[in-house]
Amino acid sequence: MIIDIHGHYTTEPPALQQFRDKQLAGLADAARRPASTELGISDETLVKSVETQLRLQKERGGDLTVFSPRASGMAHHVGSEAVSLEWTRICNDLIHRICRLLPDNFVGVGQLPQFPGVAPKNSIPELERMVKELGFVGVNLNPDPSGGYWTDPPLTDRWWYPLYEKLCELEVPAMIHVSSSCNPNFHATGAHYINADTTAFMQLIQGNLFRDFPALKFVIPHGGGAVPFHWGRYRGLAQEMKRPLLGEHLLKNVFFDTCVYHLPGIELMTKVIPVDNILFASEMVGAVKGIDPETGHYYDDTKRYIDQVKTLTDEQRRMIFEGNARRAYPRLDRILRTRKERR
Amino acid sequence: MIIDIHGHYTTEPPALQQFRDKQLAGLADAARRPASTELGISDETLVKSVETQLRLQKERGGDLTVFSPRASGMAHHVGSEAVSLEWTRICNDLIHRICRLLPDNFVGVGQLPQFPGVAPKNSIPELERMVKELGFVGVNLNPDPSGGYWTDPPLTDRWWYPLYEKLCELEVPAMIHVSSSCNPNFHATGAHYINADTTAFMQLIQGNLFRDFPALKFVIPHGGGAVPFHWGRYRGLAQEMKRPLLGEHLLKNVFFDTCVYHLPGIELMTKVIPVDNILFASEMVGAVKGIDPETGHYYDDTKRYIDQVKTLTDEQRRMIFEGNARRAYPRLDRILRTRKERR
Repeated sequence: MIIDIHGHYTTEPPALQQFRDKQLAGLADAARRPASTELGISDETLVKSVETQLRLQKERGGDLTVFSPRASGMAHHVGSEAVSLEWTRICNDLIHRICRLLPDNFVGVGQLPQFPGVAPKNSIPELERMVKELGFVGVNLNPDPSGGYWTDPPLTDRWWYPLYEKLCELEVPAMIHVSSSCNPNFHATGAHYINADTTAFMQLIQGNLFRDFPALKFVIPHGGGAVPFHWGRYRGLAQEMKRPLLGEHLLKNVFFDTCVYHLPGIELMTKVIPVDNILFASEMVGAVKGIDPETGHYYDDTKRYIDQVKTLTDEQRRMIFEGNARRAYPRLDRILRTRKERR
Repeated sequence: MIIDIHGHYTTEPPALQQFRDKQLAGLADAARRPASTELGISDETLVKSVETQLRLQKERGGDLTVFSPRASGMAHHVGSEAVSLEWTRICNDLIHRICRLLPDNFVGVGQLPQFPGVAPKNSIPELERMVKELGFVGVNLNPDPSGGYWTDPPLTDRWWYPLYEKLCELEVPAMIHVSSSCNPNFHATGAHYINADTTAFMQLIQGNLFRDFPALKFVIPHGGGAVPFHWGRYRGLAQEMKRPLLGEHLLKNVFFDTCVYHLPGIELMTKVIPVDNILFASEMVGAVKGIDPETGHYYDDTKRYIDQVKTLTDEQRRMIFEGNARRAYPRLDRILRTRKERR
C-alpha cells in the first residue's frame, strides 16, 4: 500500500475563497460579513474538485492521501482569533466531507485555529473536534502563526505544552507546517516553508521536549528543510551542546517526509536519515506543479525517486511507503486495520 | 593552491570583547563608554591568536584563508548606527593587521556597518575604506540586520542598489551572511545562518537583480543553505514563475561555498550545482568545532570530503579549490598574480 502523508486541498471550489474574501472584508466593514458559514458546496462539486488528485494518485501508483486544508490558506496571522477559528472549522469540515465521500482515497488531517500571541491551548477544542468528531488522524501545527516574523515562542517552550498533552492523549502526530508569509523577505514555498522545517528541527536539538513528551510525534515536512543536507552540522551542533546522539535525542519522535523534488535529494535523504524516520509524501497538487524538463516527469512525483534509489531494499521501501506512516499515525493504522477486517 | 574562502576570526584576544562590553555598557551609562578605540593588542598577541587556524590550515593542506571578522560578532541589531560603525571599523582593522602580519596565510574580507532600518548606502564609506585602504577582497553583507526578525527589504529591493553599484565598481563580491540571532526561535548557526542562505537564493529567483547588475557577485555560504538539497524545488519554482533556467538566471553571479559538514552533503552538492559555482570553504574555526565520531575527523575539515568525491576530475577539484575563487574574487586573483611575479 502506498500512503502519501502530505496532501493539501489546493483545488477548493471558488465558493470557499468567496467566503474567505467576505470574511476578511467583514473585518473592515461589518456589513460585508458573510451571512452564513454554509458555503452551499454540493457533494458533487467536492468530488469534482479533487478529480486531479484522484487521477494523479492512480497514475502514480498511490493508494491513500493524508489530506489537509491548503497550508498557505491557514493564514493564521490574518484577522483575529475568532476569524481564525471560524475559518479553521470551515476548512476542516470540507476535508471531513471529502474523506467521507472518498474514504478509500483520503484520510483527514486538520488545521488549528492558531493566532499570533494566543496561547496554543485555545486550539484544543477544535483539535478534539477534528479527531473525535471528524475522524482526523493528525494535525498541522504552525510554529510561526505570525506568518514570517516569528514572534511566538519556540516549539520547546511550555507555551505549547497543553497542546502537546492533548496530542499525546489523542494519539495524533503534528506536522510542523507554516502557512503563508506576510514578510516580503520570505517566499512561502521557496523560503518560509523550508526555513520553518530547519528551524523546528534545530529548536528540538536545543531543547529536550521528548523527555517531557515521550509519546509526542512530529512530522517535519519538505524532507526536513535543510536538515539532511546539513546532517553533519546538526550532529556536530548536538555534540557541542552535549545532547545525546540524534537517534536517541530526536529520532524516536521525529519523522521527515519525502517532499524533495529531485532524485539526488531523495538519495541523500535515504543515505543519512534512518529509513524508519522517512514517510512517503509528495504534497501533490502543491508547491511545485510543473514537469521537470530534465526527466520529463512531474517534479512532485516523488514515488519515482524512491523507486529509483538503488540502496533501498524492498522491505525498506515498504516502510517508507506504508509501515512508517502506520507507526507515526496510529489512528490511520486503526482505520486501515478495521477496514481490512470488515472486508 | 588551496584557498578557503570562508574563515572568520573567532579566536579574538580578550581585549576585543572587553572593548565591546564597554561599548555596549556605554549605551546604558555613558560613563562606561570606552575612552579610546585603541585596544592595546600587540602584533605578537594577534599572531598568537590565530595559531590554531594556522596549524589546522597546514594540517589540512590549505594555503590561504579569506578571513573576515566573526560573523555572529557583527550583531548589527545592537546599539545604534554609530555603535555599529565604530565596532565595524575596529573589527575590520584587526583583520587588516592579521593579513598584513601573515600575508601568505590570510587575505581580508570585511563587515559592513549595517543597522536595521538604515539605508545600506550608509555603509559605502566603510566599504571603500576596507577595499582601498585595507586591501580587502570581499565583504560580508547581512541580509537581515535585525538579527532574526527580517524587517528590512529583500536583497532585490532598490534599497540595496547603491551598495551594489559600489560593489561592482570596486570589483568585490559579497558573501550573504547574517549575524547572531536575537529571535529565540532561531539558533544562530543551526537555523538563522542556514535560513538566510535559503532565503537569499529564493529572493534572487523571484527578482531579476543580475539584469540590473550583471557584474555583481554573491557568495551564498554554508553550501547555499537548503538550496542544493531542494534543487528540484528551486528549478520547479523558477519554471512556474517563468524565470529563465537557473544557470542563466543566477549562476553567472552566484557561488556556493562548501561549508557542509559531511560527505553525503558535499556529494549531493557537486552532483546538482555546476562545479564552476562551487568555492572551497570550511568556516574553520567556526560553527562546528568537534570531531565526527563516524569518521574520526573534524566535521569542518571539508577538504577531505571534496577529495573523496569520486565523480570529480582533478581539474574540477582545482576549480573548486582555487580557480573559481580567483574568478569570484578578482582582487584576490590580482594579489596572487602580483605576488607570483615578484617571487
